[in-house]
Amino acid sequence: MRTRLAAVGALLSLTAAAHAQSIADVSAQLRDKALAGSPAFPILESLTTEIGPRPAGSPAQKRAMEWGLAKLTALGFQNVHAEPFTVTAWVRGPEAAEVVAPFPQKLAILGLGGSVPTPKEGIEAEIVLFHTYADLLAAPVGSLAGKIAVVTQPMVRTQTGEGYGAINPVRTSGPSEAARRGAIAYLHRSLSTAENRLPHTGALRYAPDAPKIPAAALSVADAELLDHMAARGQPIRIRLSLDSHTVPNAPAWNIVGEATGREKPDEVIVIGGHLDSWDPGTGAIDDGAGVSITTGAAKLINDLPRHPRRTVRVVMFGSEEMGGAGEAYAARHKDEVAKIVLAGESDEGPGPVWSVQYPKGALATPAMKAMSGVLAPLKVYVGFTPATNSGSDVEGLQILGVPVIDLHPDATRYFDIHHSADDTLDKVDPKALDQSTAAWAALIYAAAESDIDFRAIAK
Amino acid sequence: MRTRLAAVGALLSLTAAAHAQSIADVSAQLRDKALAGSPAFPILESLTTEIGPRPAGSPAQKRAMEWGLAKLTALGFQNVHAEPFTVTAWVRGPEAAEVVAPFPQKLAILGLGGSVPTPKEGIEAEIVLFHTYADLLAAPVGSLAGKIAVVTQPMVRTQTGEGYGAINPVRTSGPSEAARRGAIAYLHRSLSTAENRLPHTGALRYAPDAPKIPAAALSVADAELLDHMAARGQPIRIRLSLDSHTVPNAPAWNIVGEATGREKPDEVIVIGGHLDSWDPGTGAIDDGAGVSITTGAAKLINDLPRHPRRTVRVVMFGSEEMGGAGEAYAARHKDEVAKIVLAGESDEGPGPVWSVQYPKGALATPAMKAMSGVLAPLKVYVGFTPATNSGSDVEGLQILGVPVIDLHPDATRYFDIHHSADDTLDKVDPKALDQSTAAWAALIYAAAESDIDFRAIAK
Repeated sequence: MRTRLAAVGALLSLTAAAHAQSIADVSAQLRDKALAGSPAFPILESLTTEIGPRPAGSPAQKRAMEWGLAKLTALGFQNVHAEPFTVTAWVRGPEAAEVVAPFPQKLAILGLGGSVPTPKEGIEAEIVLFHTYADLLAAPVGSLAGKIAVVTQPMVRTQTGEGYGAINPVRTSGPSEAARRGAIAYLHRSLSTAENRLPHTGALRYAPDAPKIPAAALSVADAELLDHMAARGQPIRIRLSLDSHTVPNAPAWNIVGEATGREKPDEVIVIGGHLDSWDPGTGAIDDGAGVSITTGAAKLINDLPRHPRRTVRVVMFGSEEMGGAGEAYAARHKDEVAKIVLAGESDEGPGPVWSVQYPKGALATPAMKAMSGVLAPLKVYVGFTPATNSGSDVEGLQILGVPVIDLHPDATRYFDIHHSADDTLDKVDPKALDQSTAAWAALIYAAAESDIDFRAIAK
Repeated sequence: MRTRLAAVGALLSLTAAAHAQSIADVSAQLRDKALAGSPAFPILESLTTEIGPRPAGSPAQKRAMEWGLAKLTALGFQNVHAEPFTVTAWVRGPEAAEVVAPFPQKLAILGLGGSVPTPKEGIEAEIVLFHTYADLLAAPVGSLAGKIAVVTQPMVRTQTGEGYGAINPVRTSGPSEAARRGAIAYLHRSLSTAENRLPHTGALRYAPDAPKIPAAALSVADAELLDHMAARGQPIRIRLSLDSHTVPNAPAWNIVGEATGREKPDEVIVIGGHLDSWDPGTGAIDDGAGVSITTGAAKLINDLPRHPRRTVRVVMFGSEEMGGAGEAYAARHKDEVAKIVLAGESDEGPGPVWSVQYPKGALATPAMKAMSGVLAPLKVYVGFTPATNSGSDVEGLQILGVPVIDLHPDATRYFDIHHSADDTLDKVDPKALDQSTAAWAALIYAAAESDIDFRAIAK
């Protein structure tokens, strides 16, 4: 009996191995097709040229929605449609800042997304400059009364992008922390690894228990200028003027297209990037790249003579920067969520991808194990630790139990550009975009063709 | 007789060689002192922090003049004074450009120095896009009637900076060439080797026989965006709005300080950079660097326990970008010009310097020949061909017969920054500034201590 069981086991392994190999063979073909010139760059060129900046809730994002539907249709996807939701749109107006004394100079700034405006005549006040965020947090309540708080802590460059996470509270929480201490406005050194004069914006998050004060990012060069001025020990006065307004219940859309599964069309893998972008650039790396890579990968899969068993669904999320798209998606699909077998998001630039983290347990499955060999020529390795997060647009699904896959693009230069006017097409290397598309196409095909129950194996 | 003459010749050579060596020894000391931390960077930090942008004829340039007098005095120079002249100041107002159709997007632009404004309501017209300047020149008269001409030819990156000279007519002459063909406005790709969203300004030169049309520089990214749009073959409409005004007879100054010569104080070597700058940046590399390098070099010479024989005069020229300072200087000093034995200007950035060209004939003099060894550790070589030009501020002197010396800083990255908002202190490597200062101090000391008649040996 023992021998027979072993023989059956060996036979099953052989079958599993053969199946894994046949999946890997098609994945390798997709990889090579992407490397030879994927659909991603033309998609990105079209989006940045024909639409440009497209903040959630703006007229430009309506044009982007129409563009997305037309593009997914033209690319041959099935079930192309828009899923509407609403957002509170934040609309930037004219902005200006200058040092009034002791050394009059204009400053390059960008208001933070969600900031309240200043009074029409602006705010003029003395600054208190903190070289680190910890210094601001150490300031006593009331100590900044009537002052403009300025934080000039620099961001650390990393391959993983973790330097951004580490500095993020300076932008998101800094305004309320300064307000709690009495400040009437807030400026911080852009969360940027570049050294140019272009400020980087991004959303702030007002605490419910603190006054809402106007807040803006200084360019790196301007933050350093203030450091130099402050070293002289004289009081520095700044005049700040920020205009903005909000539009409640503005329309937004998640745009969807599918490569329908040939055997289990109701089992779905959701991949995507976000279609909205900040206003100063054309949203090329954030996140036209993610939209293009995932759409390009899905297109390659959709063009296969034999679709994978499961459905590959590409989603262009409609409001990542100010939030809301992922929540809207999860809410709308909560009844379907048990059938969403895997989700992944591309929202850290054009790449190249350098590593991937699988959902827990997947590394032990023959099909996913075989992918190491497919990814190796792309210079991508499979991490030993499981994915914990794949981006804020699929987080809503993840909270509902959907396993996630996390592909890591090299973020070394990403934060030179992101959230600034410099986020334009010329920063994107088409070869890197193709490499990323190759990795996505190969991995998503493997997951869609396999019968792996990612939920079950995670337990 | 022959033997005696040879002996006398040999003795003279020996004396000349010994003198050259003693000069080289002091030059080497100055070099090493500069390398250990020259006065240049603190001067530049002071100028960019305390003054910032300082266009000729502006209130900021008046502050810069006061700064210059105070700085030269504090550094211990003799005969510190300002030499006034007048300029027509050009003052930038609000500017904006956008693609109206077929793909609405804002464009990052900077009006060119000297441009006439648009009508208050702006100009809206279809564009004609030329990928090269030659294509524009080939367009027939009248062919651009009612159109906005756009030239998107890119600049070539070079170590020498010659790529700038080659592309310069696109900015200086392009507006009038377009106007001659009927264009009502002119846009061109910034004369820049960077790839960011910051446009680079600069002066235009209207031809007397062409209509004056408004003209602006597009950022490199925006020029490429228009290239992408144009590739679709649909008509492109742009709205352009430029405001500016001029102030005739605005005051400007050349600021002067001297290290008085110990034996021949009336023989003068003039060195300098220009104090005026474009408005978007803080004028760090253009030309705070040149001011700081030449002032720093002169300061090191002035601090010697024994001044060189001739006077070293440092001049901060007051209007290079829009012209006028060099002409004013030459006109004022025309009676003294026979006693100005040499002139040199630093106006191509912080360096490092990689080569130097002497005035014609100087390479054969023992004192200047010995400098090759002093410069070698700085990685500077002496060119075989004589200097033909050393910058537009000393050109007026050169026309009057003053020999020039030309130190070449590495310009590989200079045009990423120059004339843009990115021209700020953080772009300057203090070590490069010290190296440049070392080369200037060594060479100018040698020329000032020697008795070389640069005019005579050029014949």
